[in-house]
Amino acid sequence: MADSGALRTTTAPRHGGDLDYATRAYGAPEAGWLDLSTGVNPDAFPDPDRARTDDDTGLPGRNALARLVEAARAAHELPGTASVIATPGSEIAVRLLPLVAPPGKVAIVGPTYPSHAEAWTNAGRDVVTVAALDAVPADAAIVVIGNPNNPDGRTVAPQQLVERAARLALLVVDEAFADLTPEVSLAPHLDGRNAVILRSLGKFYGLPGLRLGFAAGWAPVIDRLAALLGDWPVSGAALRVGTAALADPAWRQETRRRLTRDAARLRQVLAAHGLAVAGGTDLFVLIDDPDASALHRGLAERGVWTRAFSEPPTWLRFGLPGDDAGFARLDGALGEVRALALSDRRPAGGRR
Amino acid sequence: MADSGALRTTTAPRHGGDLDYATRAYGAPEAGWLDLSTGVNPDAFPDPDRARTDDDTGLPGRNALARLVEAARAAHELPGTASVIATPGSEIAVRLLPLVAPPGKVAIVGPTYPSHAEAWTNAGRDVVTVAALDAVPADAAIVVIGNPNNPDGRTVAPQQLVERAARLALLVVDEAFADLTPEVSLAPHLDGRNAVILRSLGKFYGLPGLRLGFAAGWAPVIDRLAALLGDWPVSGAALRVGTAALADPAWRQETRRRLTRDAARLRQVLAAHGLAVAGGTDLFVLIDDPDASALHRGLAERGVWTRAFSEPPTWLRFGLPGDDAGFARLDGALGEVRALALSDRRPAGGRR
Repeated sequence: MADSGALRTTTAPRHGGDLDYATRAYGAPEAGWLDLSTGVNPDAFPDPDRARTDDDTGLPGRNALARLVEAARAAHELPGTASVIATPGSEIAVRLLPLVAPPGKVAIVGPTYPSHAEAWTNAGRDVVTVAALDAVPADAAIVVIGNPNNPDGRTVAPQQLVERAARLALLVVDEAFADLTPEVSLAPHLDGRNAVILRSLGKFYGLPGLRLGFAAGWAPVIDRLAALLGDWPVSGAALRVGTAALADPAWRQETRRRLTRDAARLRQVLAAHGLAVAGGTDLFVLIDDPDASALHRGLAERGVWTRAFSEPPTWLRFGLPGDDAGFARLDGALGEVRALALSDRRPAGGRR
Repeated sequence: MADSGALRTTTAPRHGGDLDYATRAYGAPEAGWLDLSTGVNPDAFPDPDRARTDDDTGLPGRNALARLVEAARAAHELPGTASVIATPGSEIAVRLLPLVAPPGKVAIVGPTYPSHAEAWTNAGRDVVTVAALDAVPADAAIVVIGNPNNPDGRTVAPQQLVERAARLALLVVDEAFADLTPEVSLAPHLDGRNAVILRSLGKFYGLPGLRLGFAAGWAPVIDRLAALLGDWPVSGAALRVGTAALADPAWRQETRRRLTRDAARLRQVLAAHGLAVAGGTDLFVLIDDPDASALHRGLAERGVWTRAFSEPPTWLRFGLPGDDAGFARLDGALGEVRALALSDRRPAGGRR
């Protein structure tokens, strides 16, 4: 199984640098290991911007990887029978899943994160985008859904997903935003089921530059994905920081509270400027407005960068300002842009 | 082309967080951007062990990726016509290459890094291992070779590789150790050729935990590989530290000098204990000795971890001790183990 990292360290190493194995086989030397088992330069290029840690210079160890995976299993309430692997970001898992999934037609519940459709199309699959789970055609072998979905924040009850999976070859659930609402996650229901979830440290934990995600669920798919990622899937920093983050339920709880408060404040600011909230999670708010394009442009001209969409062009997504100054700046920019839009709409003699 | 990252920033963003695009389209705001375009928590999980940098909390930007790739192109003397991409370590490129390569039989020049054979075999390819480039069967469509090779350090002249590529569908050259001897690299000869090289920041630069490598060469293969890695292939730390490392020719030159000196010292220590040097590079020395297994075990019992092999079991690979204390410790441990081995060989009345 892909998650038996702790056990795998009893097998002879395939590579140099496996001090976990060395310690298991020979005990921990009093003076520490003199590791001559690799071809790695022991005097690394120095980090120009900060003091060196072992993150970059050490070969990421098998035990450290096993600990990270177990921390993810616990944090995400994954059953012991589900396969779990760490991936260098969830984007790469999105891209590789089509190569290890069963054959057949793919239905994507959209609009959603665009890499899904691109990845399955690149792999030569027949792909349809449907507006809701109920609209999935009967001949679809695979369904891809975001839960909560990005950018509209729609959620589906896990029981609905369980029922859907029974009619498919594979169900893929992108749970990049599920840390906010663990009750919608399929994770606790993955026991032997033909479903895969993708998790990310890039959203709720705020660490997109770390490139750390997880794929979990059905062993035939997860184990093949693990083989494509190879023996050192994630960085030393991802192992260290990721394990600490996932093992900190107090931070998780406090962060959920803070994000709930900040998202409510963001919705208030947007509503005060007459913008209709169309969806969202506690990490972003989606508005639906006929002036969305002009609003995006006007905000950008004032240094506020939002996420515009081409389908539908009336959507605009706002992430959370990080502090009071950010909220004030957004409020001020919205005021200016909305006032301009209103004055443009007034009948003016000189304009047609 | 996969390497036109600097140009791609003129296209509309596919995702939130593309401040490079925002700046190009709207100019740099005086107060800096208020980035509300992502769903990323602006108050990230704090690094428990060091002060936070933007490495982990920022979404790796397209311009930063383009700069990294251009630094790799310059450092590795890659022609402008070669496609170049950054990969999260070279291991993952090794694993994914079989999925994007032309069809046909694969000949691997070995023994070499074991992930090559595993990856092509996993992909269902017919794989043969041959002892040298001259022994590649006529029906092989693809050849995989390490240059310099790991663990024996064998090198092949680029001109031989150029000639071989002309008879193949694809030539794959693992150049993880080529920074030591840039004159053997195929990089400057990649102009339009059906060949791909893999480079790594994990060996010469001493940064295996950073997970950063490069794949370069034939566009039909490299561009498909880029699509499998997706839009954020490497971490923020890899972008920052990798770019700095590749843009520092003075460090590279000084490091080559130092490694040459240290490798000579390592060969002397091993020779002084009667060990026959069978190969190597300036980052490791391979010995061939009938007592290799006992030597590996004896050194491990003294806290010195070396790389043992099953084929052939007479090989043992030594990396460089990082300092005088490391050299002294290796010397002492070798003395003890070799003395024991000699005393074991003496005919002793009490033993059978």
